[in-house]
Amino acid sequence: MNEPRRIAPTAGRLYGVGVGPGDPELITIKAQRIVRSCPVVVHFAARGRRGNAWSIVEALVAPDQRVLRMDYPVTTEAVTKAEYERVIDDFYDVASETIAEQLTHGHDVAVLCEGDPLFYGSYMYVHHRLATRFDSTVVPGVTSFSAASAAAGVPLVSLNEVLTVLPGVMPVDDLKAALVDVDAAVIIKVGRHLGDIRSAVDAAGLGEDAIYVERASWPDQRVLLLSEAADVRAPYFSLVLIPGRGLRDRSPTRR
Amino acid sequence: MNEPRRIAPTAGRLYGVGVGPGDPELITIKAQRIVRSCPVVVHFAARGRRGNAWSIVEALVAPDQRVLRMDYPVTTEAVTKAEYERVIDDFYDVASETIAEQLTHGHDVAVLCEGDPLFYGSYMYVHHRLATRFDSTVVPGVTSFSAASAAAGVPLVSLNEVLTVLPGVMPVDDLKAALVDVDAAVIIKVGRHLGDIRSAVDAAGLGEDAIYVERASWPDQRVLLLSEAADVRAPYFSLVLIPGRGLRDRSPTRR
Repeated sequence: MNEPRRIAPTAGRLYGVGVGPGDPELITIKAQRIVRSCPVVVHFAARGRRGNAWSIVEALVAPDQRVLRMDYPVTTEAVTKAEYERVIDDFYDVASETIAEQLTHGHDVAVLCEGDPLFYGSYMYVHHRLATRFDSTVVPGVTSFSAASAAAGVPLVSLNEVLTVLPGVMPVDDLKAALVDVDAAVIIKVGRHLGDIRSAVDAAGLGEDAIYVERASWPDQRVLLLSEAADVRAPYFSLVLIPGRGLRDRSPTRR
Repeated sequence: MNEPRRIAPTAGRLYGVGVGPGDPELITIKAQRIVRSCPVVVHFAARGRRGNAWSIVEALVAPDQRVLRMDYPVTTEAVTKAEYERVIDDFYDVASETIAEQLTHGHDVAVLCEGDPLFYGSYMYVHHRLATRFDSTVVPGVTSFSAASAAAGVPLVSLNEVLTVLPGVMPVDDLKAALVDVDAAVIIKVGRHLGDIRSAVDAAGLGEDAIYVERASWPDQRVLLLSEAADVRAPYFSLVLIPGRGLRDRSPTRR
């Protein structure tokens, strides 16, 4: 699968490290080891916020490690989708060059990523730019939907069921169409789309089944029926679970 | 969400522990702690085999912990689907009662589960039977598809893409229909269905994109283009990734 590449033998290795959904205990042993061993640790955060990925690993990082915090650009004015994409692309171009400089100097770099790096993760924008230029390793992590099912204590998907993962930011009509006939579904990136998501879920006749989970595995985690979440101001990192019926339709004992 | 339940205060706690995809380093700190602290550790395995979940945690378990290995029933003759389901249901009935006995005696029980317990995991059959009778905690784990994307080093799903997880055991025509117009997909439980899966993927015009991953994160892991996997005898724990085009359609630099 890998094409031969000319990578300087003295260059550092790029690590995309999934740090899991929030609870610092839900990081893997491998992620812990790599975060501790890399001289450079990079994380992305919204300006003025602490940074979720960073708060998960902060206790692991020693004073002699270099921590590079990269603040997402703030778009204060209404911009078109194309303008926004350009700003984000520029941001990741600059961030990736900063990381490339560290790698070129022979330093291994751990780029932190909430959840799993290659499942809607911010790391993939760096990977996309640098994985052809440097050796890289991705450390998979626990996703937010696994943490949310665990928090709800409800089997998400079983047997021969199909699981559909839908971003809540998609147009509401597309969401409605996608929810028709699903076996099991997860709607991620809920945030300010909660109202639309509720109406799409109701339109698909799934209102009775849907569970709203906010900040799964964090100390302030909340689990509600979606029908009870009418007045909730959902953070971006909330999601909706529509568990499959597989096991529910199968009696635990047939006596 | 939780109804009040009458659980004896002396009863143990049921833990469904996701032990991750295979590499013992891809277990979480929390799973490690709970496996070490439970006096009883339960795992399921195919008769005559070592048991994947067990081999992941074996080094963590001390001699004074009680390990209950439960062998899946072997169906030697051709049986109908209904007969097979009855045999499996009976197996989980008996297994759950054995676990219930330990819990009733006040012992915490860790039920091991490869990957994530509530994502197609064997633990959910126990959870379904016992979580209304005993206190329970589910520890989410890294799924096989996250490990497979990491092994392939390919972003699986990004931006506003939809991810569809399909069991390879579904009828090939259903699989073909499900693959039409997917953004990104994972086909799990490949095994002896690899031929059918290849034809479904080709029929959907996704043959160029699909990646076959066998035993992701194990020492004998293999990553191939699906088109190169013609003569492969796929184990059950292999899967096919169809990565989204999101980032590939977006140039890393627009210069």
